[in-house]
Amino acid sequence: MFVFVLNCGSSSFKYQLLDMSNEHRKAAGLVERIGMDESVLTYERAGGETVREVTNIVNHEMAIKLVLDKLIDPQGGVIASLSDIAAVGHRVVHGGEKFSDSVLITAAVIAALKENIPLAPLHNPPNITGIEAMMHALPGVPNVGVFDTAFHATMPPESFIYAVPYAWYQEHHVRRYGFHGTSHRYVSERAADILGIAKDQFNCITCHMGNGSSFTAIKGGQSYDTSMGMTPLEGMVMGTRCGDIDAGIPKFLADNQHWSFTEIDNALNKDSGLLGVSGISSDLRDIERAANEGNERARLAIAVLCHRTLKYIGAYAIELGRIDALVFTGGIGENGIKFRAMVLERLTALGIKLDATANQVRGKEALISAADSRIKVMVVPTNEELVIARDTKRIATSSS
Amino acid sequence: MFVFVLNCGSSSFKYQLLDMSNEHRKAAGLVERIGMDESVLTYERAGGETVREVTNIVNHEMAIKLVLDKLIDPQGGVIASLSDIAAVGHRVVHGGEKFSDSVLITAAVIAALKENIPLAPLHNPPNITGIEAMMHALPGVPNVGVFDTAFHATMPPESFIYAVPYAWYQEHHVRRYGFHGTSHRYVSERAADILGIAKDQFNCITCHMGNGSSFTAIKGGQSYDTSMGMTPLEGMVMGTRCGDIDAGIPKFLADNQHWSFTEIDNALNKDSGLLGVSGISSDLRDIERAANEGNERARLAIAVLCHRTLKYIGAYAIELGRIDALVFTGGIGENGIKFRAMVLERLTALGIKLDATANQVRGKEALISAADSRIKVMVVPTNEELVIARDTKRIATSSS
Repeated sequence: MFVFVLNCGSSSFKYQLLDMSNEHRKAAGLVERIGMDESVLTYERAGGETVREVTNIVNHEMAIKLVLDKLIDPQGGVIASLSDIAAVGHRVVHGGEKFSDSVLITAAVIAALKENIPLAPLHNPPNITGIEAMMHALPGVPNVGVFDTAFHATMPPESFIYAVPYAWYQEHHVRRYGFHGTSHRYVSERAADILGIAKDQFNCITCHMGNGSSFTAIKGGQSYDTSMGMTPLEGMVMGTRCGDIDAGIPKFLADNQHWSFTEIDNALNKDSGLLGVSGISSDLRDIERAANEGNERARLAIAVLCHRTLKYIGAYAIELGRIDALVFTGGIGENGIKFRAMVLERLTALGIKLDATANQVRGKEALISAADSRIKVMVVPTNEELVIARDTKRIATSSS
Repeated sequence: MFVFVLNCGSSSFKYQLLDMSNEHRKAAGLVERIGMDESVLTYERAGGETVREVTNIVNHEMAIKLVLDKLIDPQGGVIASLSDIAAVGHRVVHGGEKFSDSVLITAAVIAALKENIPLAPLHNPPNITGIEAMMHALPGVPNVGVFDTAFHATMPPESFIYAVPYAWYQEHHVRRYGFHGTSHRYVSERAADILGIAKDQFNCITCHMGNGSSFTAIKGGQSYDTSMGMTPLEGMVMGTRCGDIDAGIPKFLADNQHWSFTEIDNALNKDSGLLGVSGISSDLRDIERAANEGNERARLAIAVLCHRTLKYIGAYAIELGRIDALVFTGGIGENGIKFRAMVLERLTALGIKLDATANQVRGKEALISAADSRIKVMVVPTNEELVIARDTKRIATSSS
């Protein structure tokens, strides 16, 4: 059984084709600049060669047709016929309160996704576009929606209710939803498996740190609290997003600098985080290089990131009461050797001891805590596409 | 030496007169509804009787003259002459980055306070009004400004820098300042004294919980991090203020409900916090009563308050690495027996053990942790007026 996985943005998408008989990736690619001049398709041919083609792609439907044609291309294609694709899985950012699990997409589901557009105005519309394009391209093939928010549906009210007028929750859906759920779920389940702990007994903190970052407190295998909130702006310091700030700051700037709230919101999303503090880059690797060369703002950005990381780990350790493991994933989490060491050295009060040699690892599953560390520390590369493909297989199979 | 302490709001002020030979309070009172119909002066006469007078007070100057007249009133007054007042201490909310200690008020200081008005538009103007009124009423008597922000001047940059464009800090003073500094300083110093630990070795978390609430991580006797931010809106759940929320929420409501940012800001300050969640009251006592009677929203408000409390204690415990004590103060901190117990039962991972009997205390200094608790837990009633009077004496004496 082959599952096609689509992660669709407004002018780009990523895709994978997975062979679910062995969970191997058969194909993967990326389309960028959809609807602009010089669209770009980058993909792997059978055999592993990477190809980059520049062409004009006017919309998502055309892009998907192009990608599907490549999959069945007699030269370099990976499957014989599109009928080999048994189901399509879609990453959907915001499921609101309606979806606590992945779901077979029906007209009613699409209507619900459209209702959720105000909650994710940048993300849900392209997700819907991708779903509709796949339905058109592969008629009769089941589509499954896998939500970034769904894993967090288990949070108790004290985690998800903001201390704002309760009517804002009841009438306007203002609450913490959390995101990156597919990643937090995958890495926490892998960690439990590797450690041989039953999932429903497993308490851990998952640190998904990449360009977007969020931490999750996981209790008995379920999300108990998470750092992203109603939107993906809250929580950790990210590449270009501010994470936690005083909610009075936008109004202060609007009142005193006469900036528009749209300008301020753009700056909090695109000019803040590591980029905003360092003034150098949103990429921790660039910032670490500059810090090594003595750049003060780069050092400050790293210190701010480390500080926020410690705050969340401390908060979640106390919320959970007992934790078995601390799990790092995402670009920084998987590859940030120096950063992980800097954080872990500050966690001795939790009984954490780093194995400095084991920590010399990038992008591979590894136990990086010392044998006598009270809490295990692990690196687990995330694999959201695999989770989407598994859910898609499960739901498409059970509903057919 | 007598010191007059003034805490001045826009239409009200609180005052005390302290005899600094023994630090006893000689007089205390409150003026409300200044500039409105039926202003109210409430004060203690010599002997302790409380008097409430309703009259018309058109402005702060008139109110201060009235209060000073009561102090020297042959019947019920407490001092023989206004010349017995050696100095006046003022609570000033926002010192910005200029003031890391209390200061003798000069024309240059008043100019600096005026510059800081954008940072505290509701608080600094009445503070300045109070200073000018006292200068007029007691010419030649030194005035000292004691800042809510000053104690937090020791925070390292990783605590006070938000992950926003760095120019916002450099050009527009966007940073964490923190408030309630006088209270955090007083209770942390008292706790160190009571425990017999040298202040510069003393690490603790001070939990100031009242209608306004903030927590401070104190390292070596100095503020290392605090929960209020650029404004007093950030951090803990408060009586009517939201504390931490996703900074995207105001824009979400403005975009979708077409509310003005002023309306939203008012709601975050005045209709949120315990009042917003419970729908009952901003006072935890009312909410606890309703929760006992089975009110679900009251229970939720308590759960949300407890959750946020645990988050901050966990975060600060890790930031500090080692803590000697946890100190509760403010209306809830001093009197919330049930709430303290609820929090402390969730802190066993820190090695905290409650002494349930010792915890049956309201408004008095007490050690409430068990003898074998790894971290001491204390109740220390705050006394901001005493700190202001001490600073005023120190600065007025050294500068005269």
